[in-house]
Amino acid sequence: MKATKQAYPPTPQPNQNLRFDQNGEFKILQVADMHYANGKTTHCLNVLPSQNFSCSDLNTTIFLNRMIKAEKPNLIVFTGDNIFAFDSSDSAKSLDAAFAPAIASNIPWVAVLGNHDQEGTLSRSGVMNHIVGMKNTLSKFNPPEVHSIDGFGNYNLEVGGVEGTDFENKSVLNLYFLDSGDYSQVSTILGYDWIKPSQQLWFQRTSAELRKAYISKPVPQKHAAPGLAYFHIPLPEYASLDSSNMTGVKLEPAGNGISSPSVNSGFFTTLLAAGDVKAVFTGHDHLNDFCGNLMNIQLCYAGGFGYHAYGKAGWSRRARVVVASLEKTEKGSWGDVKSIKTWKRLDDQHLTGIDGEVLWSKSTGGNQG
Amino acid sequence: MKATKQAYPPTPQPNQNLRFDQNGEFKILQVADMHYANGKTTHCLNVLPSQNFSCSDLNTTIFLNRMIKAEKPNLIVFTGDNIFAFDSSDSAKSLDAAFAPAIASNIPWVAVLGNHDQEGTLSRSGVMNHIVGMKNTLSKFNPPEVHSIDGFGNYNLEVGGVEGTDFENKSVLNLYFLDSGDYSQVSTILGYDWIKPSQQLWFQRTSAELRKAYISKPVPQKHAAPGLAYFHIPLPEYASLDSSNMTGVKLEPAGNGISSPSVNSGFFTTLLAAGDVKAVFTGHDHLNDFCGNLMNIQLCYAGGFGYHAYGKAGWSRRARVVVASLEKTEKGSWGDVKSIKTWKRLDDQHLTGIDGEVLWSKSTGGNQG
Repeated sequence: MKATKQAYPPTPQPNQNLRFDQNGEFKILQVADMHYANGKTTHCLNVLPSQNFSCSDLNTTIFLNRMIKAEKPNLIVFTGDNIFAFDSSDSAKSLDAAFAPAIASNIPWVAVLGNHDQEGTLSRSGVMNHIVGMKNTLSKFNPPEVHSIDGFGNYNLEVGGVEGTDFENKSVLNLYFLDSGDYSQVSTILGYDWIKPSQQLWFQRTSAELRKAYISKPVPQKHAAPGLAYFHIPLPEYASLDSSNMTGVKLEPAGNGISSPSVNSGFFTTLLAAGDVKAVFTGHDHLNDFCGNLMNIQLCYAGGFGYHAYGKAGWSRRARVVVASLEKTEKGSWGDVKSIKTWKRLDDQHLTGIDGEVLWSKSTGGNQG
Repeated sequence: MKATKQAYPPTPQPNQNLRFDQNGEFKILQVADMHYANGKTTHCLNVLPSQNFSCSDLNTTIFLNRMIKAEKPNLIVFTGDNIFAFDSSDSAKSLDAAFAPAIASNIPWVAVLGNHDQEGTLSRSGVMNHIVGMKNTLSKFNPPEVHSIDGFGNYNLEVGGVEGTDFENKSVLNLYFLDSGDYSQVSTILGYDWIKPSQQLWFQRTSAELRKAYISKPVPQKHAAPGLAYFHIPLPEYASLDSSNMTGVKLEPAGNGISSPSVNSGFFTTLLAAGDVKAVFTGHDHLNDFCGNLMNIQLCYAGGFGYHAYGKAGWSRRARVVVASLEKTEKGSWGDVKSIKTWKRLDDQHLTGIDGEVLWSKSTGGNQG
């Protein structure tokens, strides 16, 4: 909940490289499951009777504007089900309206696909294609160097160190974005889709390249820079966490409370093996908003954001903030990433902050990738 | 246990393509965990006091000779821990001695690596390199078309239909061989290694190419040809089987009785998604010899074969046989694969056959790949 000295709104820099600010911080706002449809004519789900009157998608828009203004993030990440396309009369218009506050803020933003984004007038590739053409987004359709990869919207972003420091030309924080698909295409497997071998191989190789660059000149480092991974559908390993080892809650009622694929496609293992990703951030389960540590990887939800998404009346819509902080060097300059903290804000009168915690810190280690 | 009319020993055809015989059958002998070391000076483990006198690696050799003579397979598959290299004074010599009966039989044979093959004078790549240079083997070092793949000894073999029939130029049975590694190279993950994304992607693409060929001219088929996968370390999903849904036994005492990797790398999901593989055959756990059906994929062990491998005194060393049988067409010719059966033989006086069962049949379906 630290205030930053960053001017608001920042100067438009749509083609800028991401980098840490002069305060040695980089802040990410995660927005999960907006479920945007047609705007003011689209009603809210699961709100209190007192809230129901005139509640619509515009409440989602208002919440997003408030969050951006309160947090002034360096990057906004939309983790899928950005639109609930089944209820949308025009997917492109819904996407435009859903992301409008991000665009208006002039803050760089990215999105990945959920399982509901393609249920309208645009296919999955159509939705991602529309997104990458929007203003101020750093979203990419897929990695250009890979000939064939499953899904749409698998890409990574590098976050450079502070300008004018030894780390200005190094990515000190790596962000990975993946398409976790929608529904199983295999007749013998029910339920949600999963992250495929082609995507995992791309991640693995990208992580290895980033590590190689990080441990090379200039200022060669001992370990890989920390990474964060964002996608929509939680991994099966989320189910191994319980209230004894999580911050936040698991309120989803069905089954074990985690709507992951019914099969394990191994991405958690691939993350462990790569070693650089310290935290994974998903959406999909609107009533889960926890982070929990499994084998030194934090498995996090953001909690449901959108008002046309199912929720729980009286349980506020919410969003997750992550801030990475750099180490101050002996010379008074900024070094590499020292810690990664998180908190959430509720869509109440004061945008109440909850569940602040340190996800990773350099000193206590965890996986040194 | 059907007798075949095949001549024994068959004419040497080291470069032959594998194909079904004129009886419409293709038989595979699986030999798991020979643990061969130095021959007659290498003692036996876990045998009855009455057997212990002069028991050595040569008992493994004798058992292999007996099995080959009794079954006259079309292919012999060695599923790793072919040698127990830690106790071997010369890995190449141990390999030569271990595979000698297969070579002498003039039957085509293949091998994959286990977790003990590299513990001697040869590295993992050295062992595989030695194997692929041996007589009569169809083993391959790795797929030539893949630039980078984890492990050594990932390859596939096609088994053609009967010569002179419509299927003579089609692979009606596909065999996949993978290197399941040895030990985790990741400090945060204990235990055994796992099948990596690069290997899974190779499998997935190979399976897709074989399917494409099978559903194309000549004699285009509706579904992929059935496949069988052989490797050393069991998948984590083996642990979900119990005595209520297996043929054979799980006698391994430790933990849940399955020494798979401690993490799930997703290969079972990849197999399900590809759909063509009907059965997986591993070794590694010498006291498990079951097959069990999980989501229409049979997960099978062969049971321990070698006398210098740990075992259980009084519980015979054993091997698994698989026979695929073709459908007789209306014209009296041979068609595609109708059924896949299996049984085991014990190294007792009569090479007693046990646990015969149908693993897959075309009529009852299962995954139609």
